[in-house]
Amino acid sequence: MEGITVQELGLAARNHAMPLETLREPITPVGLHYLLIHFDIPHVDASRWELAVGGLVERPLQLGLDDLLSRPARTLAVTLECAGNGRALLSPRSPSQPWLTEAVGTAKWTGTPLGPLLREAGLAPGTAEVVFTGLDRGVQGGVEHLYERSLAVDDALRDEVLLAYAVNGEPLPPQHGYPLRLIVPGWYGMTHVKWLSAITVVGEEFRGWQQEEAYRLRQSDDEVGTPVTRMLPRSLVVPPGIPEFLSRTRFVDAGPCVLEGRAWSGWAPIERVEVNVDGGDTWADAELSDAVSTYAWTGWRFAWDAGPGDHELCCRASDAAGNTQPNDPKWNIGGYCNNAVQRVSVTVS
Amino acid sequence: MEGITVQELGLAARNHAMPLETLREPITPVGLHYLLIHFDIPHVDASRWELAVGGLVERPLQLGLDDLLSRPARTLAVTLECAGNGRALLSPRSPSQPWLTEAVGTAKWTGTPLGPLLREAGLAPGTAEVVFTGLDRGVQGGVEHLYERSLAVDDALRDEVLLAYAVNGEPLPPQHGYPLRLIVPGWYGMTHVKWLSAITVVGEEFRGWQQEEAYRLRQSDDEVGTPVTRMLPRSLVVPPGIPEFLSRTRFVDAGPCVLEGRAWSGWAPIERVEVNVDGGDTWADAELSDAVSTYAWTGWRFAWDAGPGDHELCCRASDAAGNTQPNDPKWNIGGYCNNAVQRVSVTVS
Repeated sequence: MEGITVQELGLAARNHAMPLETLREPITPVGLHYLLIHFDIPHVDASRWELAVGGLVERPLQLGLDDLLSRPARTLAVTLECAGNGRALLSPRSPSQPWLTEAVGTAKWTGTPLGPLLREAGLAPGTAEVVFTGLDRGVQGGVEHLYERSLAVDDALRDEVLLAYAVNGEPLPPQHGYPLRLIVPGWYGMTHVKWLSAITVVGEEFRGWQQEEAYRLRQSDDEVGTPVTRMLPRSLVVPPGIPEFLSRTRFVDAGPCVLEGRAWSGWAPIERVEVNVDGGDTWADAELSDAVSTYAWTGWRFAWDAGPGDHELCCRASDAAGNTQPNDPKWNIGGYCNNAVQRVSVTVS
Repeated sequence: MEGITVQELGLAARNHAMPLETLREPITPVGLHYLLIHFDIPHVDASRWELAVGGLVERPLQLGLDDLLSRPARTLAVTLECAGNGRALLSPRSPSQPWLTEAVGTAKWTGTPLGPLLREAGLAPGTAEVVFTGLDRGVQGGVEHLYERSLAVDDALRDEVLLAYAVNGEPLPPQHGYPLRLIVPGWYGMTHVKWLSAITVVGEEFRGWQQEEAYRLRQSDDEVGTPVTRMLPRSLVVPPGIPEFLSRTRFVDAGPCVLEGRAWSGWAPIERVEVNVDGGDTWADAELSDAVSTYAWTGWRFAWDAGPGDHELCCRASDAAGNTQPNDPKWNIGGYCNNAVQRVSVTVS
């Protein structure tokens, strides 16, 4: 891998992935969940904060946090992954947050479903998309903007889409979007707009920078590209044994060793996880447990008889929609959706 | 700066600094406080966990979490900083966690004072140091070990040293040492041993790897070096305006702009913070507010009349013990204690 630049390091110092040993937990503790913040964390006074629901609606709404808390609540365990997870393993790579493989987390998000709120506001004729506006402002790609993303109306109306004000039973912490964020189960993290301040129904395709320029799969700059949407399948293993501080190489005692990990896909349930312990073409099926929820990862286990020597442990997931992790990365300019299999170096003695 | 290696990136992806805008908060929310974990976060079952107090004591103790919770409790706001903060700005630099300037945080730690516990155990004659052993095991410098650090008996007996089981009013999260960690106000982070399992009084200097090899100031490998202990003064500014995503350069509107930040020292109270906005030799005094606690940072403010153009904002702190931040880093092999002034690039228009 080429050296990471000081600018990439500046992002890596602010944001963080989930330490892989945390995969043991079905629900990721706050503070260990991955975090990607484009600009600054806004300082929000919730007593003065309001959510504006407007645009092509019959009855525009202004809602305070208490209004949202008094609406029907739903709690969902949801696996979130950054669309740029795996970017640092691409070559050449886009200068952005240099993720390795672990920009993921699963939390219990509590909020009120978005669909009923939109129906109360009343969708006017000719609606196409719903735009979600955060309070985080900055410059990216030379354009000053608030962080904004859109969803097609049908996607926004899905039952599982939440306006979340709590995580793991506590009010959102500042870094996860206090006081309100969008949760769109199954989609990569860029969709789950934090510090939400406005929901605007529009009659045409939204063309904000984070929608039209960022988060698109392109092979060259002059392509329009295809938008990044749902999470491709990925599987990760809890690195066994103990680590070397710097290299994170693992040291494992010879003998029986149960490998465990988790796998997820935003397209369909996980149907299969395979493990490769010899660096060759031999893949063996892991045993799956029930998913933590319809929208969260699935646990897996594999009984490995660890023989002395150096090994590279790999795992790959397949979902019921027919998607399987590739052995090698699929390159694109933005460094998105690199779900190539994880490789963990282990020395057994 | 030279490029960051993939190994350094692996550490930067796990650990994280405090996003600088969080300096606005006197108490850092959990999840935004800096974090440095040498090995893996241990998985601890608190119902089976015990703290052993032994070695050169008259009455060895075995204490469960309930035993500790039933002892006298004290809550202290404490600023913690990693000894390696600033390492990535040194050249050449030691391959380790590549911190820029913001590996810091202030939290309210609740626990029971260590001194009375040691006195109950009864220090035997001939004691020299107290060794603190964590449950985190790994390999560093080619040596397999549990993370262990020692304090001289007099330092361990200081009133403000705590065995902490809560942070910001909640049980410790896994990444901060659940169920128990040491808090030694004023000292760099390596001292505050997490996942504490044993406290052992010894009659000679402790020679564990993290004490004798790591955390020493050396100019060459064959020096014994001097141990890293208390935090040198440092001041940080909340970056004003809005950021550019990748470079973190700031854009600020011309006109009056209040700069604010925080400063701390483990040696003595902060006595002065100076600000430099023109890149030259002109330093002006900032206005100080009261420290958050005897052991935590001090706020500061500076009214800046931001004129159009590019600026480099710098701040430097001095403490009552006569320590002042240097303008340029002081190099050492391990990359410790680099408290050179922070530099923030700002474009005003």
